[in-house]
Amino acid sequence: MIIAFDAMGGDYAPDAAIKGASEALNSYPDLRLLIVGHRGRLEPLLKQYKILGSDKIELVHAEETVMMDESSTIAIRSKKDSSITVAATLVKEGKADAVVSAGHTGAAIAATKVRMRLLPGVERPAIAIIMPSENGPFVLLDVGANMSTEPLNLVQFAVMGEVYAKAALKIKSPRIGLLSIGEEDVKGNDLTKDAFRTLSSMPINFIGNVEGKVMFQKFADVVVCEGFVGNVLLKATESLAKATMHWIKEAFSKNPYRIVGALLAKEAFKDIKEIGDSEERGGAPLLGVNGICIIGHGNSSPKAFKHAIREASDFVKAKFNDLISQRLNETGATLELLRKNRSD
Amino acid sequence: MIIAFDAMGGDYAPDAAIKGASEALNSYPDLRLLIVGHRGRLEPLLKQYKILGSDKIELVHAEETVMMDESSTIAIRSKKDSSITVAATLVKEGKADAVVSAGHTGAAIAATKVRMRLLPGVERPAIAIIMPSENGPFVLLDVGANMSTEPLNLVQFAVMGEVYAKAALKIKSPRIGLLSIGEEDVKGNDLTKDAFRTLSSMPINFIGNVEGKVMFQKFADVVVCEGFVGNVLLKATESLAKATMHWIKEAFSKNPYRIVGALLAKEAFKDIKEIGDSEERGGAPLLGVNGICIIGHGNSSPKAFKHAIREASDFVKAKFNDLISQRLNETGATLELLRKNRSD
Repeated sequence: MIIAFDAMGGDYAPDAAIKGASEALNSYPDLRLLIVGHRGRLEPLLKQYKILGSDKIELVHAEETVMMDESSTIAIRSKKDSSITVAATLVKEGKADAVVSAGHTGAAIAATKVRMRLLPGVERPAIAIIMPSENGPFVLLDVGANMSTEPLNLVQFAVMGEVYAKAALKIKSPRIGLLSIGEEDVKGNDLTKDAFRTLSSMPINFIGNVEGKVMFQKFADVVVCEGFVGNVLLKATESLAKATMHWIKEAFSKNPYRIVGALLAKEAFKDIKEIGDSEERGGAPLLGVNGICIIGHGNSSPKAFKHAIREASDFVKAKFNDLISQRLNETGATLELLRKNRSD
Repeated sequence: MIIAFDAMGGDYAPDAAIKGASEALNSYPDLRLLIVGHRGRLEPLLKQYKILGSDKIELVHAEETVMMDESSTIAIRSKKDSSITVAATLVKEGKADAVVSAGHTGAAIAATKVRMRLLPGVERPAIAIIMPSENGPFVLLDVGANMSTEPLNLVQFAVMGEVYAKAALKIKSPRIGLLSIGEEDVKGNDLTKDAFRTLSSMPINFIGNVEGKVMFQKFADVVVCEGFVGNVLLKATESLAKATMHWIKEAFSKNPYRIVGALLAKEAFKDIKEIGDSEERGGAPLLGVNGICIIGHGNSSPKAFKHAIREASDFVKAKFNDLISQRLNETGATLELLRKNRSD
């Protein structure tokens, strides 16, 4: 189990990244890490977190890092020696089984697409994320791997999301919903209406359109949408969760009764805060690339890095990409089969 | 002040609608209502809520109602005598100053567009809604008037949203943000990137892209997006707010300390619940139509109906559409001026 770990990506990298890597190595005995980044910056941290010289790691130098305000396509072309490109190349060359990065998401996608390529029969990758709901977690995808999406892409996202929900949420026959603006099949935009028709004809548990208004009451185990919508939605829910904690604090400090009440119930606030906590979740898989890629949250803590590494190793162990390929074939959702059905 | 009131639209209509109308008539002395709907169903309710025979109302019969699962375009064509079409026609004919409906949103938009037409120089209308944030309310638009949107439409939404924020939130120079998936101008999809360029050149307080992740911390007073995204976002936040109340309840009932804490602070829960409450908000204006149209929430209570009627009358008094036309001209955002600038 060898994972290429981009130690330069993320708001608190490389410090949080190396601390997380060190914790992961302590927790998972069969893990080996190729730690990718700037040697001069990483060596002191490896020393600090007591993994310098360990036979479980190897430091792979990368001269550059893609900055958050760079255009991903330009950065990938111009910075051939960036940490994310070097990490993806290690997977391509068979030197690592998976790549983990919490850096520039666009750059991670571009680098893995260019270096590792996509799975046979897949046209676009998708970032999937596990979201909380009143009735347990569900999978939302795509949350930002693509800026423009065709109906066939949504169909493939549905199948890849199904495989992920089966594996990560242990759901036998995940209910798949298409995120739209009305329940009825006549509602939606051209993209969703077209995808709706194909999904309806497939041997999957497709339950039709799912509206935003029932999303967190969990009517579907897998919610499929295009990347722009999914990304805005994911980020906005994080923002709303933060605002809600602010409102709760405000409401509970208005008078002495409420303050005492809050003190008595202080553990309750922790429980609520943890529901939306992405630390445990680890990272989000980039589904559809020919190799495992886990994308960490930009603000990843050491704990989040640790769990992202764990998730990558779970994917490798489960031979996740074989499961996707198999299911795309079974459901007639490879690009070739989808196009053939269209022209029939 | 005469308002055409679609009494048949909404989950709890016509009962909640007539109750709300009655309350509005009691609260606003200069109000007159043309109550539109099925005579046989409405008369008993008018009697029940003590406004039958009042000289402040007139019952206008409409034989049909557009059902929630109907296609709006088909319904508007086939049901010429539906309550929403009859109400919109009253405005068109100058018999009413505004229309209020909590029925099928798509049908309300189609009916007002067909009957009342759009303001000169406007290509598409937009539904604007006031959302809460950590730092006070902001305007989000479009939340569902359009299924497909051109860059020029987003530019017009920005200007109309600015006028709404000035009037409704009393903000002198509203900060206008474009909802996107990164702060930098290079981030976004083709639609937002194109709109970004035009908005940057206009005499408005455009602050660039706004990400979902800061939305509820309020970096912008007006957040502009296409209707599909806005609708999903609006509904999903409602769903998340509901789930959050569930999680709070659950967390506060886990052990006796927390239960006592919750009892002591029980008014705090009310405060939190009220933040997202759409009842006070009333309705959402359909901006850009040649006449005032307020769209109520599908689950409108009597109170929500009352406030939607109040909002419509505020719009009429403020001569809101004159303000929009004037501002579109000032900022060079009429369709003609935008197209001229493009071709230069």
